[in-house]
Amino acid sequence: MITSNVAELLSSDKFLQEVEIKGWVRTFRANRFIALNDGSTINNIQCVVDFENTSEDILKKITTGAAVSIKGTLIESQGKGQTVEIKVAELEILGESNPDEYPIQPKKHSFEFLRENAHLRVRTNTFSAVMRVRSALSFAVHKYFTENGFYNFHAPIITGSDAEGAGEMFQVSTLGLDNVPKDEDGNVDYKKDFFGKETNLTVSGQLEAETYAMALGKVYTFGPTFRAENSNTTRHLSEFWMIEPEVAFNNLDDNMDLAEDFIKSVITYVLQHCKDDIAFLDNRLTQEEKTKPANQRSEMTLLERLNFVAENNFKRVSYTEAIDILRNCKPNKKKKFQFPINEWGADLQSEHERFLVEKHFKCPVILFDYPANIKAFYMRLNDDGKTVRAMDVLFPGIGEIVGGSQREERLDVLKQKISDLNIDEKELWWYIDTRKFGTAEHSGFGLGFERLVQFSTGMGNIRDVIPYPRTPQNAEF
Amino acid sequence: MITSNVAELLSSDKFLQEVEIKGWVRTFRANRFIALNDGSTINNIQCVVDFENTSEDILKKITTGAAVSIKGTLIESQGKGQTVEIKVAELEILGESNPDEYPIQPKKHSFEFLRENAHLRVRTNTFSAVMRVRSALSFAVHKYFTENGFYNFHAPIITGSDAEGAGEMFQVSTLGLDNVPKDEDGNVDYKKDFFGKETNLTVSGQLEAETYAMALGKVYTFGPTFRAENSNTTRHLSEFWMIEPEVAFNNLDDNMDLAEDFIKSVITYVLQHCKDDIAFLDNRLTQEEKTKPANQRSEMTLLERLNFVAENNFKRVSYTEAIDILRNCKPNKKKKFQFPINEWGADLQSEHERFLVEKHFKCPVILFDYPANIKAFYMRLNDDGKTVRAMDVLFPGIGEIVGGSQREERLDVLKQKISDLNIDEKELWWYIDTRKFGTAEHSGFGLGFERLVQFSTGMGNIRDVIPYPRTPQNAEF
Repeated sequence: MITSNVAELLSSDKFLQEVEIKGWVRTFRANRFIALNDGSTINNIQCVVDFENTSEDILKKITTGAAVSIKGTLIESQGKGQTVEIKVAELEILGESNPDEYPIQPKKHSFEFLRENAHLRVRTNTFSAVMRVRSALSFAVHKYFTENGFYNFHAPIITGSDAEGAGEMFQVSTLGLDNVPKDEDGNVDYKKDFFGKETNLTVSGQLEAETYAMALGKVYTFGPTFRAENSNTTRHLSEFWMIEPEVAFNNLDDNMDLAEDFIKSVITYVLQHCKDDIAFLDNRLTQEEKTKPANQRSEMTLLERLNFVAENNFKRVSYTEAIDILRNCKPNKKKKFQFPINEWGADLQSEHERFLVEKHFKCPVILFDYPANIKAFYMRLNDDGKTVRAMDVLFPGIGEIVGGSQREERLDVLKQKISDLNIDEKELWWYIDTRKFGTAEHSGFGLGFERLVQFSTGMGNIRDVIPYPRTPQNAEF
Repeated sequence: MITSNVAELLSSDKFLQEVEIKGWVRTFRANRFIALNDGSTINNIQCVVDFENTSEDILKKITTGAAVSIKGTLIESQGKGQTVEIKVAELEILGESNPDEYPIQPKKHSFEFLRENAHLRVRTNTFSAVMRVRSALSFAVHKYFTENGFYNFHAPIITGSDAEGAGEMFQVSTLGLDNVPKDEDGNVDYKKDFFGKETNLTVSGQLEAETYAMALGKVYTFGPTFRAENSNTTRHLSEFWMIEPEVAFNNLDDNMDLAEDFIKSVITYVLQHCKDDIAFLDNRLTQEEKTKPANQRSEMTLLERLNFVAENNFKRVSYTEAIDILRNCKPNKKKKFQFPINEWGADLQSEHERFLVEKHFKCPVILFDYPANIKAFYMRLNDDGKTVRAMDVLFPGIGEIVGGSQREERLDVLKQKISDLNIDEKELWWYIDTRKFGTAEHSGFGLGFERLVQFSTGMGNIRDVIPYPRTPQNAEF
């Protein structure tokens, strides 16, 4: 008797072997054909029940969602759509699933309904495929960096500094909101808080990662980050996973090379290791696209898009060139942009990024050398005195997927920037130390993992690519 | 010209090649010999400066911690302790390091001092070795689970439920502590909070992981978890990384097999991939042990301990057997235990666990079948009605490294337990659903990643195996 899983059995040719398998019933047809799934693949294995010799009581309990244990013989399938099936000898119901109560029935459910049942939605084809691809991408990330000499660095999640200013933060405390202790001046007495000071959830591990890159050479973070912004969009989560490599001695060109090579590598990994899931998701997206008006449909299928990114160079365009293109483009002249582009220095909005990527260049684009005053303090100032060595990677359908920069390694320039922004130097003493002692060029970027999963799976809403999404007014499960 | 790193050059035999390398000066000896490190290995490469043809100004700046760029010729070394060295042709100082200010000098620093300089301590041999081993362990974890058919599952960090009761929690809020909004009854108005309800940082992703295991079969989490406990010990952190596999259809025996196989696999990985770092740490620990009184020294070196765990079976002992051993052991009879063991049902303390592992069995021990009333509600009740299918893996020097169980899969038994503990069923509706629809045996465990790093590196204090430790009154950096 071989105890196995669906993925192994489906690719097996050990016919007439006795096998044992456990899984969940997806459908039960003609009182005879169980489509069994155990999560090991998107495909089900057909188990043929000898209904004449099976009690009515058992047959009644073979319902969608029920857990069963099956012993039987692996045989070549007579039916269409599969090569092997199991001739059932013994069937045990492990856990029933009352069809009148079980929410996940074999029919089309709206993604909204499934979000409300996030604990069960992974039992559907779409979400199991998405989560398997997510897992494969996660491994591809670790594999890429490990094979390229990077060390995984776990940035702290609870942080005492709000220096980066990447966004609104969640406060972390044990003071208890019902009776907050105050000091003599009526201010919150943070000395009594758990860490003896005000603390928040991290918005980025970059500054800490820089300290490690300046010792270990190449590091990367892959952990949760947080934004307490009231953004109810299909592109934002309050809690999301971010990947942040940081490399000593890299300049911005090296940084662009790294971002491009990294993204191509992980997408290639998924194309190679998730063929069945991607095929399913490709088909799903194609069906979804058909429901849209013809002029809103994508020009490429999911699979075509993934192959396109894996095989083609990203277009590298300076911010200044991009502004020229945008200023002179049709939508701008015809006043179709919500935010018209009139002059150099404008911050690019999603509509501009999408125009560049989807209409003008029709490929992933890396914009670089942005105006200093719309970018963070730690980015390296160019000799022109007005642009910084920043870069954003823009993807079709997703927009910004990577934001990065060469870091300002010069102590005096960095201190001036910090002072200009009225940040207290004492807050960043340890960060400044890296420029005091053995400073050198270095660069890095942040990649929002969920946006990568969105791109790789073709899912339109970022809430559908993370198991339990956290968004404003929503922390269920 | 080959641009390379120290690890590659040290194992290279491309003599007389022109090479370029960037890194940081560890020491500069006799105005001539730079020991250069770039984080790629614990070993330094010797760079020989032609001091007669180098300006005094440059020579003065070759100090510990300075960043330099070197071009030169790779040659066979004449000196002891290395096979290759670089004959320097060009040397550029990238970033100076004033020896009067730089805290990390080539001498012995206390771990306490280094903790206060956590942003620089990774520039020392000990901490760079620890962090490289930590990174290798992290990859080994992902590799093991991926190769064994598990999917990586990202459990939510911010959680709306406090059901597991694994420990004190940190509250997450955007209400602002200085002016907390109250409702008509004077209670905190959580409707105005970011998520519209009270939220905390997760203490475990297990319950959510169970929902995924019951669809995908085998999943694991690897993410940060939090405890707001005032434990100032060498074994506790307020923020730490935890690994939690969860497997559908596994019983407790399968779970023990998995834990043992997993731990052996990741330790074997480190033994194979971190030879130089482990050798250094092995030597460091041996030196440290020599400073202890003879009767307090370990019987094994670090390397011996790692090999021992990789090669020997863990001893599996029921709680009941363990109590018998403890009740009759010398330290108990001689009243040497702080908490004497008198009867079945006692909760085991660290002193008891260490006695069993270090004195009695002298190997890793898996204790199982604990009294129900000292374990969590979700653990499966045995037929005796008084023990549950819980297990703890105990390690020498570390104590508990894994805690796990077979989960209570029976709806009625689980509901009774929840009701007995006065937990509101509504809080756990989604968890209970997994027992309503297609329930089945399943098991899992949690492994504290930092304890694994401690064991693998021989570091005595858990604060020294995570980049930026968070502990009571400490959230610096």
